[in-house]
Amino acid sequence: MPLRIILDAMGTDRAPSDDVRGGVDAVRESDGSRFQLILLGKADLIEAELAQYSDVDRSRILVRNAESVISMKEEPAQAVRSKRDSSIVQGLQMHADGEADAFVSAGNTGAVMAASTFVLGRLPGLSRPTIASQFPSESGFTIVADVGANVDTKPRNIYEFAVMASVYAEQLFGYTNPTVGLLNVGEEESKGENRAVEAYTLLKESRLNFIGNVEGRDILKGTANVVVCDGFVGNILLKFAESVNGLLRAKLMAFADKSLSNKVMAGLARSTLRGVFREMNYEEYGGVPLLGVNGISIIGHGGSTPKAIKNMIFKAEEMARKGVNKRIEEAISKG
Amino acid sequence: MPLRIILDAMGTDRAPSDDVRGGVDAVRESDGSRFQLILLGKADLIEAELAQYSDVDRSRILVRNAESVISMKEEPAQAVRSKRDSSIVQGLQMHADGEADAFVSAGNTGAVMAASTFVLGRLPGLSRPTIASQFPSESGFTIVADVGANVDTKPRNIYEFAVMASVYAEQLFGYTNPTVGLLNVGEEESKGENRAVEAYTLLKESRLNFIGNVEGRDILKGTANVVVCDGFVGNILLKFAESVNGLLRAKLMAFADKSLSNKVMAGLARSTLRGVFREMNYEEYGGVPLLGVNGISIIGHGGSTPKAIKNMIFKAEEMARKGVNKRIEEAISKG
Repeated sequence: MPLRIILDAMGTDRAPSDDVRGGVDAVRESDGSRFQLILLGKADLIEAELAQYSDVDRSRILVRNAESVISMKEEPAQAVRSKRDSSIVQGLQMHADGEADAFVSAGNTGAVMAASTFVLGRLPGLSRPTIASQFPSESGFTIVADVGANVDTKPRNIYEFAVMASVYAEQLFGYTNPTVGLLNVGEEESKGENRAVEAYTLLKESRLNFIGNVEGRDILKGTANVVVCDGFVGNILLKFAESVNGLLRAKLMAFADKSLSNKVMAGLARSTLRGVFREMNYEEYGGVPLLGVNGISIIGHGGSTPKAIKNMIFKAEEMARKGVNKRIEEAISKG
Repeated sequence: MPLRIILDAMGTDRAPSDDVRGGVDAVRESDGSRFQLILLGKADLIEAELAQYSDVDRSRILVRNAESVISMKEEPAQAVRSKRDSSIVQGLQMHADGEADAFVSAGNTGAVMAASTFVLGRLPGLSRPTIASQFPSESGFTIVADVGANVDTKPRNIYEFAVMASVYAEQLFGYTNPTVGLLNVGEEESKGENRAVEAYTLLKESRLNFIGNVEGRDILKGTANVVVCDGFVGNILLKFAESVNGLLRAKLMAFADKSLSNKVMAGLARSTLRGVFREMNYEEYGGVPLLGVNGISIIGHGGSTPKAIKNMIFKAEEMARKGVNKRIEEAISKG
């Protein structure tokens, strides 16, 4: 049976154009046994976009109308409460009602998080959902949770992030019994803020493959497969990491401006770096899942390209097929 | 009158060789009216190193013996209590006693911090000293405090970090009335953990040039001249940032291994990046000051090269000449 995946067609900054294009590409690059795509949003706009792609198998694409759109600037909780007919809330409601197996959106992140938690509910035994993101490392990827701005968390929340991120790392990144590190300012058990010291104890006593504290430098080194932290630190780190490329580019441009030979060198360096860092390009992995909700909700940047959208759909499919939520439930219930 | 600067000659991983060499270079590259250098540590070892540099003006270099050394692995508080005759504790005591105007060490960071606070005491009105570090930005440098692992701080501490880092940014980086941002997960005043929300209010009501919340990406962008945060976040960010270069190098090497043309390209990219990122090299700025103590204490990496040591000495000199501590006292008393 093909899965049914809802794509919020009103998500990106260039919606519905780039969203529809990404959805069309996902359908083109997969066979019909895999999934049907439900494009949700302003139906007339979506149909107008779809009309451009006469080659795509329309039997795999359904268009459903959603009256309103939650914009990037709206206050999430307020928007979710007042716009039940938005592509975000309506799409998650359809998923909760069993009309689809997964939901994908590049829209207002806070609204997708709030609506996912509110509409889908949490998996049993979990107190706070988490966003786990992937950082490149010298040996592959490090999965960091929480990066979703779950602030003022308790030690118990951090333990739960570790359980969820471990399942995710195992199922989607192929790490067997992934190692887990607690992000801290030193290696010793007694180091760091009180919350971290208490989380250390919970992690040590758990069934997770906990290797102790890790430091800021260990994320890119790949010292642990999974790194857990409060969402305040994680979110700041993620945004910092995403800005490194911008600094590199700015510095290379300033360097190039100094002479013709610098210009040539900078151009070569940039193209080399592009090759080297292809895997760090978020287009390749698209979005990140909100883990811990009773359903599959994939969240992407507002600036997502069609390629990123396509890969978000593939990620939703993979998470559904692999039963990631079932495994998280089992892991949490085992303690 | 030349200043008197104490260099802990037992600080680096290759002490006293690299420390003495750095000190000698500082003397060579400055004239005698600027400072005298006091090399503190195992006097016989220091003299043996000095014997190699027959050209240096020995009238500007004093050697003083300290019986013991605090190693990198020792627990800081314990080591400071038990080793009063170590180069770190003794050097700070000499500074406190007025025998010198500044103290420089690449030794055990925790021990230098603990001993500085304990021996020199705090400046009036300040509750916790801070380490302010510089991050490269698209427009110059961003000064981030605290990066020294002051964890579980109170909102008042973060406000004090902002006062100290603002004076430092103005005096040593030439930023007039530097802009101050509070590191957070969103721009709105109500965003983030409780501590940040409370710190926002203190900063807003202060005389600082506070521009509101900034996010992880704003550090390298240079949105604010000064960025303040709890030391848990700041320390993790600093170590993360320092590890970016290692990841770049590893990825370039893996890329180079794939073919001969890749090897050539990777070599070119690396040499270009070296040129581009010279300013990000910590050798250039050497160490960071511990701000808020009643004296000048410059802390460096254990891996400091002679060049880094030399620049730490120059930084100590500049801080003493510019009366940074006097200005911090004034700024704190004004509120």
